[in-house]
Amino acid sequence: MAMTIDRLSGVSKELMSESILLCPLGTAAAPEQKLLCIFGTGDLGRSLGQRLLQTGYRVIYGSRRPHSCGPLPQGAQAMDYEAAALSATLVFVCVHREHYDFLEALAPQLQGKVLVDVSNNIKKNLYPEANAEYLRRLIPGAHVVKAFNTLSAWSLQNGPSDANRQVYLCGNDAEAKQAVSEIATKLGFAVVDKGSLSAARELEDFPLQLFPEWRLPLRVAIGLTAFFFFYVVITDVVYAYVVQGKDNSFRIMVSLANKVCPIVSLIMLSLCYLPGVIAAFLQLYRGTKYRRFPDWLDRWMLCRKQLGLIALGFAFLHVLYTLVIPIRYYVRFKISEGTISQIRENRTSVFDSTTAWRADSYYSMGILGFGLYILLGISSLPSVTNALSWREFNFIQSKLGYLTVFFCTFHTYLYGWNRFLRPSSYKWYTPPAYFLSLVVPSVLIVLKLLLILPCVDRSLTRIRQGWERTSPEDGNKRALLM
Amino acid sequence: MAMTIDRLSGVSKELMSESILLCPLGTAAAPEQKLLCIFGTGDLGRSLGQRLLQTGYRVIYGSRRPHSCGPLPQGAQAMDYEAAALSATLVFVCVHREHYDFLEALAPQLQGKVLVDVSNNIKKNLYPEANAEYLRRLIPGAHVVKAFNTLSAWSLQNGPSDANRQVYLCGNDAEAKQAVSEIATKLGFAVVDKGSLSAARELEDFPLQLFPEWRLPLRVAIGLTAFFFFYVVITDVVYAYVVQGKDNSFRIMVSLANKVCPIVSLIMLSLCYLPGVIAAFLQLYRGTKYRRFPDWLDRWMLCRKQLGLIALGFAFLHVLYTLVIPIRYYVRFKISEGTISQIRENRTSVFDSTTAWRADSYYSMGILGFGLYILLGISSLPSVTNALSWREFNFIQSKLGYLTVFFCTFHTYLYGWNRFLRPSSYKWYTPPAYFLSLVVPSVLIVLKLLLILPCVDRSLTRIRQGWERTSPEDGNKRALLM
Amino acid sequence: MAMTIDRLSGVSKELMSESILLCPLGTAAAPEQKLLCIFGTGDLGRSLGQRLLQTGYRVIYGSRRPHSCGPLPQGAQAMDYEAAALSATLVFVCVHREHYDFLEALAPQLQGKVLVDVSNNIKKNLYPEANAEYLRRLIPGAHVVKAFNTLSAWSLQNGPSDANRQVYLCGNDAEAKQAVSEIATKLGFAVVDKGSLSAARELEDFPLQLFPEWRLPLRVAIGLTAFFFFYVVITDVVYAYVVQGKDNSFRIMVSLANKVCPIVSLIMLSLCYLPGVIAAFLQLYRGTKYRRFPDWLDRWMLCRKQLGLIALGFAFLHVLYTLVIPIRYYVRFKISEGTISQIRENRTSVFDSTTAWRADSYYSMGILGFGLYILLGISSLPSVTNALSWREFNFIQSKLGYLTVFFCTFHTYLYGWNRFLRPSSYKWYTPPAYFLSLVVPSVLIVLKLLLILPCVDRSLTRIRQGWERTSPEDGNKRALLM
Repeated sequence: MAMTIDRLSGVSKELMSESILLCPLGTAAAPEQKLLCIFGTGDLGRSLGQRLLQTGYRVIYGSRRPHSCGPLPQGAQAMDYEAAALSATLVFVCVHREHYDFLEALAPQLQGKVLVDVSNNIKKNLYPEANAEYLRRLIPGAHVVKAFNTLSAWSLQNGPSDANRQVYLCGNDAEAKQAVSEIATKLGFAVVDKGSLSAARELEDFPLQLFPEWRLPLRVAIGLTAFFFFYVVITDVVYAYVVQGKDNSFRIMVSLANKVCPIVSLIMLSLCYLPGVIAAFLQLYRGTKYRRFPDWLDRWMLCRKQLGLIALGFAFLHVLYTLVIPIRYYVRFKISEGTISQIRENRTSVFDSTTAWRADSYYSMGILGFGLYILLGISSLPSVTNALSWREFNFIQSKLGYLTVFFCTFHTYLYGWNRFLRPSSYKWYTPPAYFLSLVVPSVLIVLKLLLILPCVDRSLTRIRQGWERTSPEDGNKRALLM
Repeated sequence: MAMTIDRLSGVSKELMSESILLCPLGTAAAPEQKLLCIFGTGDLGRSLGQRLLQTGYRVIYGSRRPHSCGPLPQGAQAMDYEAAALSATLVFVCVHREHYDFLEALAPQLQGKVLVDVSNNIKKNLYPEANAEYLRRLIPGAHVVKAFNTLSAWSLQNGPSDANRQVYLCGNDAEAKQAVSEIATKLGFAVVDKGSLSAARELEDFPLQLFPEWRLPLRVAIGLTAFFFFYVVITDVVYAYVVQGKDNSFRIMVSLANKVCPIVSLIMLSLCYLPGVIAAFLQLYRGTKYRRFPDWLDRWMLCRKQLGLIALGFAFLHVLYTLVIPIRYYVRFKISEGTISQIRENRTSVFDSTTAWRADSYYSMGILGFGLYILLGISSLPSVTNALSWREFNFIQSKLGYLTVFFCTFHTYLYGWNRFLRPSSYKWYTPPAYFLSLVVPSVLIVLKLLLILPCVDRSLTRIRQGWERTSPEDGNKRALLM
Repeated sequence: MAMTIDRLSGVSKELMSESILLCPLGTAAAPEQKLLCIFGTGDLGRSLGQRLLQTGYRVIYGSRRPHSCGPLPQGAQAMDYEAAALSATLVFVCVHREHYDFLEALAPQLQGKVLVDVSNNIKKNLYPEANAEYLRRLIPGAHVVKAFNTLSAWSLQNGPSDANRQVYLCGNDAEAKQAVSEIATKLGFAVVDKGSLSAARELEDFPLQLFPEWRLPLRVAIGLTAFFFFYVVITDVVYAYVVQGKDNSFRIMVSLANKVCPIVSLIMLSLCYLPGVIAAFLQLYRGTKYRRFPDWLDRWMLCRKQLGLIALGFAFLHVLYTLVIPIRYYVRFKISEGTISQIRENRTSVFDSTTAWRADSYYSMGILGFGLYILLGISSLPSVTNALSWREFNFIQSKLGYLTVFFCTFHTYLYGWNRFLRPSSYKWYTPPAYFLSLVVPSVLIVLKLLLILPCVDRSLTRIRQGWERTSPEDGNKRALLM
């Protein structure tokens, strides 16, 4: 405590000149000060200890077998639990919940100390109460703080890396939380206080989640894929087999896959932009932006990014499937067959410039569309997104996004061309699959065109800037999101 | 203030043992302490308030209608402006500039307080003076600090994400700035002090910018694309129509696009490395690295990354346009036509091994070039760049960069092969387009080769390490950038 | 010092109300306080100074020629070394090691000051001792701290960017280190204390390293590429020349490249997952996870990411080489030749549905495999990795990883099909190359299948959760890494 006293007692010249060294934060962290205790010498305990030592803390491990607890980060010492508990005012509990019971015996030594519960469970709802709650029950005299559990041992050891910089903590005692948040800050993390210990359950479930925000979009993708796959199997393979009696089941592997991919991709891309348009119309209808959207719309809006990325994935497969066409045995066979038949029947096919135009524009649209697609994908990489100003991100995601939708839809229209006129396309009175894929994007484009009509656009902008048809006063509630 | 007093008065044992809890930073942020006020309950106000509450501050909202100001982050309370103003020493003004006028009435309550202006405008130069300046004019007695306006409400609510971690602030009062920067630090942001309030205008313009550093490169790209597009339209389509009287306008969609893309890509790639070479020669000529480059060169150097990425985009399109060739109606028609005519005229074409060599090397060079291209692109993703040590980044961008230029240029030479000898290539006495695209890269490669001559390289290295032909002393001014 | 004194003396009402402004951190950084000195006005000195000024410090430069030391960041002033040294308690030495000697004369002025050595060398082991050690020898009276040298002047000027947020420092004096780490923290960096000054050498070598973790994987890649290249050259080109006397050397550029790429890619992909499987078996055999792996396995494990990424690179080239096939002169020639001969000999080839099935599945597997490949690549981008929870990352890298291996291996089997039965495949009694490429992945898949047998999997999971066949107690040493 030497230095604190210094600071409180006389203010000597020397002290003044050394002010940099003696500034509070300085003393607060000068190694003499901070002695922390870690219970448990497992991977997590070691990683945490190593990082703490690197940051200038002193660390004492509490272990059942202090002398045979395996390699510890050098600089740290191990004691039995009692001694370790007494040594410090703050204890990290890096122990499996199953073994918490031994802590009960330490209640007296842990009286009034800060206990940091960093534990996680292997699966959700394994126990009636959160680990941290349980810990508090065991040692009522201590101030339990739940923290650090959302970090991997890896990032605990190596310090924060770009995305997972945040440490969530919760607890009932403000000072205890403050002490922990201070340590987290020194370790280079940004602290987010989630309130009282009752939030511990939520924090403990966090690391167990597996792509929650991807669930819905993936379900949609799988559903669409399954539906259209069976659709084309029936219209292409089964139909050919039943009606024309010829077996082209081999087409499943590439040809049909290459029908399903673009269809699903196009639909999901439009599903990614549709909610935005719906929201706009809702705001226009309500005349305000301050009323919450219905839950289904909220949920939909929240997974737009995922919808878009999955759509990109399917587009990518579509491109590969398309480019592989000319190498296919089937295609080569057909082509040479065609040539041969021409010779034998002594036909001469004439070059049709319109077909050339159509086919080439069709490919060109597809290529440009895919190019923009990729651009959207890149711009949604975390690091890229974060490097963009809000306005830039908005420009890419909306302007370029709709351009992509337009290109891809146009690409599909060119593919269909006048095919929809031929009755042969309607096998068993069902429209060709590409046809169905055009519904959603077409609707989307029409709605979007309505929205960019000057008159509509103007009132929408005003609403988005906080103006309300009901009461104009909230206007001043709107600033930066624009 | 309890704790501050503690800290100043007697130093009890208890205090000692709890030193962790009582360390200054601790007290500084112990919830009793920090009460902040937010004017305006709009999106931004709410987001900011929520984050402040999460980080352990207490928040009071000032609103015109404290009882009907919509949902507030729980934990916060709303008062009328007067009461709110009196409650805290620091006030965030989350209100549209248009509504600042009401603040004038609060001058007495805001006397001596810190006012944080977070506002932005919808477009640049909307008002004669910066919002913050205007605010200071309204309440001369308060210390106005401009801050947080460069962050989106989103990142204010969720805390800093990797790239946009920086909070810019400016103001005339050092202590006021310090108070704000302290809050920003606790929220997990890194503070950058931009000096006096006169910098406010600059800060307010920041979020309004739209890819400023991309402007120039995009203009160059568009210019080149337009020029070469018309060039090839004339030499390929118009010429064929006028001279040979045949209409192959359909070639515009793919064939010509696939001529323009690689040309623009190659030129822009070399434009991305040219300034570096020019700078090197300039330094050699001047015999020092301490004199500034001419502005045009500086500007050029600053947009190298963008030039390269746009070049990559065009290369990507070129690849797709090339791979799509064999599926094209036109190509298939030509091929089978060729085969048929062979049969009819009973010719047998002989396999030319040289052509095979040339064609395959041509493709191989292109593929390897594109591979490196992609590598350069990936390495310029923010998160990747930041993971590289300076030396590693330099290695990739220069060594691999020039290798890419070489491969792509060689690829183009192989494409041209001996075509430039045939008079037929010179339609209307103009050289073929690919020909023009070779000028810049060839020059670049020659210059680069000169630079890596041992003698030249040696003196350049010395200059780059700080040696000066004029005065050798500045040598010690050079350290880490090497 | 005004404010410090305030804080220590009486606690006036005014002080209370202004508590936010006067909180320690506040005073600690209030501009009056922090005066820092920088020796050397080179690029690094300027960059560092500018950033310090932006963050609210005052900066004085020490220069040999204070009046002609070129442009300094505005706000800073330059003095001769003596005056500068006296002005501050902390001095950044931004000078080339070669010029340290002049510092010896300043020993008296630097007595008791903190000297921050930020220097680096141009190559490793240039000097017997670390620059910082040398500095300490020169001025024994000062507290030397090595810091900031791992940052580029760029990031020193612009503040931390996502990945390189860490400042490594080392030194023998705790308070000196604390003072420096405090400055680093204010600049927005996360400090990692590497211990005593003896670590300086390590820190100085750090910026000089060039992809250390890529060395081994690249060597492996080059070795495999070379071996298989010669292998296919012999079996395809040389054999054809010697035995059949025909020269198809042109095939080297594309055909052979397209044999080598997939082979190397597949082998390296399996090499990327093999160590994990080996480790699992080792743990099963030892019955514990707490014993270190043999070094070779550790090193192997550490470069898995790099192995995978290089494999992806080769896969990418393989895809391009494959897609370019139908445009090749050779291929087109062969195809039309085939057609022609068919006509002439009046053969009619019949469509073989099985071949179609096989060929198409072969392509489909390849496409899906490559799609997953890309996904793995994307998920290993720093920013993406960091955005994933540990469980998510683990899911992608293991589950999807093995799926990729499976697809690609199956793809290769389909390619080979029954070819291995034909004696013609065994030129000079050597198996076809693709054959060799199947060994490693096949082994990997078999081993993996063994591991996911319920019984094996169960005991492995228990071991991974900390259970030990020898002593069960360490169980509680296991938490988050699962």
